[in-house]
Amino acid sequence: MKSLVLEKKQALSLRDFPAIDKAEETLAPHDVRIKIHTVGICGSDVHYYTHGHIAPFVVNAPMILGHEASGTVIEVGTVVTSLKEGDRVCMEPGIPDPSSKATRLGLYNIDPAVRFWATPPVHGILRPTCVHPEAFTFKLPDNVSFAEAAMVEPLAVGVHAATKARVRPGDNAVVLGAGPIGLVTALAALAAGCARVYVTDLAQRKLDIAGSLSPAIVPVNAQSENLVDIVLSHTDGWGVDVVFEATGFPPCCQSCL
Amino acid sequence: MKSLVLEKKQALSLRDFPAIDKAEETLAPHDVRIKIHTVGICGSDVHYYTHGHIAPFVVNAPMILGHEASGTVIEVGTVVTSLKEGDRVCMEPGIPDPSSKATRLGLYNIDPAVRFWATPPVHGILRPTCVHPEAFTFKLPDNVSFAEAAMVEPLAVGVHAATKARVRPGDNAVVLGAGPIGLVTALAALAAGCARVYVTDLAQRKLDIAGSLSPAIVPVNAQSENLVDIVLSHTDGWGVDVVFEATGFPPCCQSCL
Amino acid sequence: MKSLVLEKKQALSLRDFPAIDKAEETLAPHDVRIKIHTVGICGSDVHYYTHGHIAPFVVNAPMILGHEASGTVIEVGTVVTSLKEGDRVCMEPGIPDPSSKATRLGLYNIDPAVRFWATPPVHGILRPTCVHPEAFTFKLPDNVSFAEAAMVEPLAVGVHAATKARVRPGDNAVVLGAGPIGLVTALAALAAGCARVYVTDLAQRKLDIAGSLSPAIVPVNAQSENLVDIVLSHTDGWGVDVVFEATGFPPCCQSCL
Amino acid sequence: MKSLVLEKKQALSLRDFPAIDKAEETLAPHDVRIKIHTVGICGSDVHYYTHGHIAPFVVNAPMILGHEASGTVIEVGTVVTSLKEGDRVCMEPGIPDPSSKATRLGLYNIDPAVRFWATPPVHGILRPTCVHPEAFTFKLPDNVSFAEAAMVEPLAVGVHAATKARVRPGDNAVVLGAGPIGLVTALAALAAGCARVYVTDLAQRKLDIAGSLSPAIVPVNAQSENLVDIVLSHTDGWGVDVVFEATGFPPCCQSCL
Repeated sequence: MKSLVLEKKQALSLRDFPAIDKAEETLAPHDVRIKIHTVGICGSDVHYYTHGHIAPFVVNAPMILGHEASGTVIEVGTVVTSLKEGDRVCMEPGIPDPSSKATRLGLYNIDPAVRFWATPPVHGILRPTCVHPEAFTFKLPDNVSFAEAAMVEPLAVGVHAATKARVRPGDNAVVLGAGPIGLVTALAALAAGCARVYVTDLAQRKLDIAGSLSPAIVPVNAQSENLVDIVLSHTDGWGVDVVFEATGFPPCCQSCL
Repeated sequence: MKSLVLEKKQALSLRDFPAIDKAEETLAPHDVRIKIHTVGICGSDVHYYTHGHIAPFVVNAPMILGHEASGTVIEVGTVVTSLKEGDRVCMEPGIPDPSSKATRLGLYNIDPAVRFWATPPVHGILRPTCVHPEAFTFKLPDNVSFAEAAMVEPLAVGVHAATKARVRPGDNAVVLGAGPIGLVTALAALAAGCARVYVTDLAQRKLDIAGSLSPAIVPVNAQSENLVDIVLSHTDGWGVDVVFEATGFPPCCQSCL
Repeated sequence: MKSLVLEKKQALSLRDFPAIDKAEETLAPHDVRIKIHTVGICGSDVHYYTHGHIAPFVVNAPMILGHEASGTVIEVGTVVTSLKEGDRVCMEPGIPDPSSKATRLGLYNIDPAVRFWATPPVHGILRPTCVHPEAFTFKLPDNVSFAEAAMVEPLAVGVHAATKARVRPGDNAVVLGAGPIGLVTALAALAAGCARVYVTDLAQRKLDIAGSLSPAIVPVNAQSENLVDIVLSHTDGWGVDVVFEATGFPPCCQSCL
Repeated sequence: MKSLVLEKKQALSLRDFPAIDKAEETLAPHDVRIKIHTVGICGSDVHYYTHGHIAPFVVNAPMILGHEASGTVIEVGTVVTSLKEGDRVCMEPGIPDPSSKATRLGLYNIDPAVRFWATPPVHGILRPTCVHPEAFTFKLPDNVSFAEAAMVEPLAVGVHAATKARVRPGDNAVVLGAGPIGLVTALAALAAGCARVYVTDLAQRKLDIAGSLSPAIVPVNAQSENLVDIVLSHTDGWGVDVVFEATGFPPCCQSCL
């Protein structure tokens, strides 16, 4: 196995990456070493490949891609208790500063000091092994496959959104966008108690997937159907209780309001 | 059909009740008239029969029992728009003062001025027909039976509890008590996103019903098993996120803390 | 005293308005009659005068303006208990349908059926007297003047915003816009526990008023100062906990995100 | 300066404590060394002195008391950035495991692995100096005295309670108990937006202090006055929005419900 390296914009290579092997030679007491099994490809990986940067993060040096990963523990640090060699695991890709204000407030995911895989200058996880803190490595139940486990990171985006939105049992929701994040958000909204979730997109192919996930998901083609009319007619003029924006397209943000 | 009248403590009769027919002779513009089909028997009905009172509410005069009801609309007031003759419906048993502070705050269920069926001196619903405000009468979907509809009122207790508890997806909960309210609360907690709900009781017969409702419900016999040990061992020492008290027994309240 | 009537766009007259006197001749049991003392002029009044419409609401017939009012009770309905002749009061300008879903949910302010003063075709309150429901008429404490009382309606916008924002003690907030709504929102945010509120505007005159209201309000001139730099330097790079948008200007909405 | 050592139940001595000097000889990169200035005496210190234990925590060996402290930084670790020698500070007395589930959830105060000053076997802070993590050491504003700073820890109990209670502007609250925690809770409830706080106690001396803190605090003598009657008469029969229990006395818990 080799690492998948973004050498520079639009230039990938599959090769050894001795620097990271060296950096991870030793295992700190709270860390585990993981043999990587499956890694998902995120839109951000594609974006770094295509454009060489996302907002202020610029690929100035070769960087290993990937941050949605599962694997098997092959070594544990001296004080690790919740994991052991052979455990199948998935990993959280961002490691916050444990002393930061964000961590103390329970908002470690927005810690400005977070070190997030495949965000320059932090290397990603499309490589043979990695060293990771026990606290951000999670043992898989037997019925979760490595492929499913690599999807836990994007799924968590949806679960976090549904949690922040304080969905109540019986709520109706709209999810704008039927891409991967839109779909996991729709599923999470249902798991959080939504009675019905309207998912909109321009691509019928994506909407067909959305509609196949649950009878409680109503796909709406934003090109040929009128979301507001559909929602108002289904809800006796009341509308929905929650809107999730999963397109990143400014006019969609406006339509949420 | 006759009305079921609690004449006084431990004295029931099935008879006509002309006073209520007269009181409900005319239909106000916002009201509907409903032919009653099914009525559930609540613990409070039994308590009024057995003891003649609940807290400050005393049965001083013959009172019709029952407050969990479903039926069919047979007449609608002049300004009613959401219901029509023939609609199958269930009803909310408490009518608040629409001008009260509680109503303005969205807390009409705790309006001190609420008129609640089968709470002296307000008559209940074990009678042939009733007149009820459109706003508190709800049309049934075709797939809900009259018997299920009569259970909507107790079910709403569970849904309200799960909503107030702000259950988040993936939470674990304990429900103390496997009576009807305990069971609907457990089901509502699952619908609100709970991953697992521990239900405790002393009666194995009730626990067997609890366990049969969902693989995510874990029945715990409070006489032969230790709830705290079970919960801590299942959650790596963390405990549950939410506790619902559905016994009314003071030591159970204490154990919630 | 006469009524202030918007005859049509940009045409005001001060005159008798017999139609409303006739409509309010009789007093329903839950209503009170109020002699108007003071009425504030809202931006919406000015907008109807200047443009003749706001969004879908068009002035097609003469309409009395004004919805921020205080006055004195001069007559009470037969079942009114909380008010009596001579009481100094202020009034909520929107009367919802007491049977609506919005009212049942405690969201009567967004009831689609609300009848709101000075919103066509509902007349406003710049007139000698009005009839109003007891439930939306509030007795003034002795230390609140009629002028202050006429400001309760806009103040309530700020209090509602601070409540919905779930401000916690010690939070820092930004209010975009130092108009009347921006200022009442800043004051409400402080009353709700904010430690510091940054208020931005382009008009230095408005910022000077903002700064004079409390030492905990920091005025920021959006033309000559950089809000983000100021906030980050004051908060060790953390930023604020809450942002209130009180300009209605789309780029400001974007800057909230 | 010496350390105040609880040698065993009801046996205090003021003496050197070489073991702790040795344990704190070296400074980790994220730590600071603090010269202690002022330490408050908590009820728990008194309880350990009187009874030798609190719940499962037993004083089996000499233990330094005290956990409410302020002082001056006299040395900083190699990576400390927010503090420097000479800074006046107060300290949070409990250090959680930064890798724990509680920390990740933003609930580090209830981390089962927390090391809390003056809770056996962890030594307290009534000693000349201490070594403490930068993350739990807070620089004082110039207008806060060392004595006030030593009160920040109990004050934080009140602020945390008011935050958890989600106090909204204009709420009314009851605080049961006018001891130190009751008083800081009442003040925090006011800071969080409460309009009025009723504080009850049996000791008139404590109630006089409560009443002197703010005109918005209403002291109620639980022996000679009826709290419920007072609250209902002040609130037109509505009651309060929030109750804080600060006595630890079971019948008071019951009266909250």
